[in-house]
Amino acid sequence: METLKGALIFGQSGGPSSVINSSAAGVFIEALKHKDVITNVYGAAHGIKGILDEQFYDIGAEDIKELELLKNTPSSALGSVRYKLKGADVDETDYKRLLEVFKKYNIRYFLYNGGNDSMDTCNKVSKYMQQSGYECRVMGVPKTIDNDLFGTDHCPGYGSAAKYVATSIMELKLDSTVYNTGMVCVVEVMGRNAGWLTAAAQLASYKGLGADLIYLPETPFDIDEFLQSVKDVCAKNDNKCMVVVSEGIKTKDGTYVGEFTASKTDLFGHAQLGGVGAMLANLVKEKLGVKTRAIEFSLLQRCAAHLASKVDVEEAFACGAKAVEAAVSGVTDKMVCLVRKPGKDYVCTPELMDVALAANTEKKIPESWILPAGKGLTQDYVDYALPLIQGDCKAPLEDGLPRFAHLKKVLVK
Amino acid sequence: METLKGALIFGQSGGPSSVINSSAAGVFIEALKHKDVITNVYGAAHGIKGILDEQFYDIGAEDIKELELLKNTPSSALGSVRYKLKGADVDETDYKRLLEVFKKYNIRYFLYNGGNDSMDTCNKVSKYMQQSGYECRVMGVPKTIDNDLFGTDHCPGYGSAAKYVATSIMELKLDSTVYNTGMVCVVEVMGRNAGWLTAAAQLASYKGLGADLIYLPETPFDIDEFLQSVKDVCAKNDNKCMVVVSEGIKTKDGTYVGEFTASKTDLFGHAQLGGVGAMLANLVKEKLGVKTRAIEFSLLQRCAAHLASKVDVEEAFACGAKAVEAAVSGVTDKMVCLVRKPGKDYVCTPELMDVALAANTEKKIPESWILPAGKGLTQDYVDYALPLIQGDCKAPLEDGLPRFAHLKKVLVK
Repeated sequence: METLKGALIFGQSGGPSSVINSSAAGVFIEALKHKDVITNVYGAAHGIKGILDEQFYDIGAEDIKELELLKNTPSSALGSVRYKLKGADVDETDYKRLLEVFKKYNIRYFLYNGGNDSMDTCNKVSKYMQQSGYECRVMGVPKTIDNDLFGTDHCPGYGSAAKYVATSIMELKLDSTVYNTGMVCVVEVMGRNAGWLTAAAQLASYKGLGADLIYLPETPFDIDEFLQSVKDVCAKNDNKCMVVVSEGIKTKDGTYVGEFTASKTDLFGHAQLGGVGAMLANLVKEKLGVKTRAIEFSLLQRCAAHLASKVDVEEAFACGAKAVEAAVSGVTDKMVCLVRKPGKDYVCTPELMDVALAANTEKKIPESWILPAGKGLTQDYVDYALPLIQGDCKAPLEDGLPRFAHLKKVLVK
Repeated sequence: METLKGALIFGQSGGPSSVINSSAAGVFIEALKHKDVITNVYGAAHGIKGILDEQFYDIGAEDIKELELLKNTPSSALGSVRYKLKGADVDETDYKRLLEVFKKYNIRYFLYNGGNDSMDTCNKVSKYMQQSGYECRVMGVPKTIDNDLFGTDHCPGYGSAAKYVATSIMELKLDSTVYNTGMVCVVEVMGRNAGWLTAAAQLASYKGLGADLIYLPETPFDIDEFLQSVKDVCAKNDNKCMVVVSEGIKTKDGTYVGEFTASKTDLFGHAQLGGVGAMLANLVKEKLGVKTRAIEFSLLQRCAAHLASKVDVEEAFACGAKAVEAAVSGVTDKMVCLVRKPGKDYVCTPELMDVALAANTEKKIPESWILPAGKGLTQDYVDYALPLIQGDCKAPLEDGLPRFAHLKKVLVK
């Protein structure tokens, strides 16, 4: 295999996570080791948009200490973007522009960090460069708190978000049951189509401080059954009940329960503003006459780097580094995936799979892991998820607060 | 001074905190050392209500290891209550019953943990026992995330909640500014009358990752000025703005801004459900046409023991222990308060003050510390608050999740 000499550009795409910057650190720190092959290391501002706009940072100008701190800095340090490339057959404009920029800066390595859509971007860009006869190695680095990426045992970002959800549910369970009066607490967790993150509430149940009811988008949601279940739990439990619900729960006919809230009238014609959690809390209050509280984890669940999983931080870093190693060694059109060895002990290594396979496919929770009527998940899920939330790993404290990375962000001229 | 031999009962009252159980640990562990004087150590279920109902736990039956774990277990392990005793001159029923229970179990030490109302309870109970000729030593242990208790430099519970607010604001600031599109993020923090907890957002600003605008209940809130300020920040800052707002902000005439939401129509007659943060986010969206997101810290800010301040955990414990020491040595009718030594280095010790002084008085933020028009707080506040959030101290991990205390809770027959 011939050595391909040129610049490397890396971009971050889609919703950030607690460890997306750990993958960036893995890419950057590894890339800077290959100075004989990788002439320049660039970070694209706001993903693919930064390449189109020629807005990218010279990572070689950064202090290595700050790049190390990226491991524990939440959110996308380079800025993120939601931008779906059209097919080149529909509109070639963006592709022509990308080729132009790649040529101008002799970019020969394109690494992109994200979920399904980002893998689709990798795939499309690589195909176009090949057709144009421009040699360029393209690698996908997986990321999503949703854990819905096909072909990898799990996604970097999921373990930390799951640890946040499980820990917070345990803490909320203690807090929300503190008075000698009834209280139904409805917690809303992210996840439009796959319930992986909501499922993490089961880990709290496993520790004896969990939700009483868990609702995932994978199972049709029935309002009457829900109200009956809450009623049953309340009857057994001093009118106390904790419900954890995915933002993406749908009724039998496929309508998002939260869509009623978006249209500002709920299932019962009431004016609404909050999310599906607020709507269900309000419904319980009205129908069962018990005090309720709705809590939405919102952005907190994807940026709480102070509660990151050590396993997750390290795997995210390893995925970034692996992508660079593979590309330098001649590989292209792959996504790094995590492969778990069968057996009782958790051993998981970054491997490679075709990026085209990961593009645009969603991985949902196996049906057999989901118990009916909001009763949570089986031990299979706990066995799957528990290794992913192990260990703490967070930014050093300065004045009692996290010392996150400060990048210089020197724009390439 | 004569030795007073008898049982000690301890109760927790009002909204819990991350470290209220650390004070309980301080009380219990210290009390169990004085077996020659304190014949039994009881924990009242749901505060004063548990005494009235003769529902209390035998703390002597607990494992000392579990009592130690209480230091890092959030919420009120004994259960809390919101119950305000009427004056004995208005209705003597509760007092008679308390006296009856105290006599029955030879309770000679009554320690109560809470805020202003709880200190009022201490005061009333003590006065009644004195009038009845029943010897009993009464001590208040301070607690509140609101930090509004008079006579103490700060309250146990505040440091940890402030650390949660500051850390989360830093993380949210990184996350909410990640896209190349505008975003006004409105974060709602607890605090009905005093803005101490909301002020903690200033600590994030001090670290360079803070809110752009901070609104406290201490300063009248003007909607038009608020909208103009958001507009100004957006104009300078790529349409990005982070606002932190106290749930208790009021208009010039003293009306809670959130009251409009409670009545389900806001200032502009729109239907509403969420809190004041959601209402302001919605208003900004409508008036300024920018994308918004409302985030409510809700119960998370008072139960996130995984992010507790070491200083706070230790001070809370010390306050509990001090109350027992003082009572055993003959003191009564006092509240433990934290006294900070003047000077650059932070030195703070638990001392004693009259419980009657703390009862029913609210401590607000000094006016001179508050900048106008949502511009945050002065360095005086930072100097005051920064020492309170130092260090980490959390429950040991078991399966990657916190191992909280498991009490046996053996009811006293």
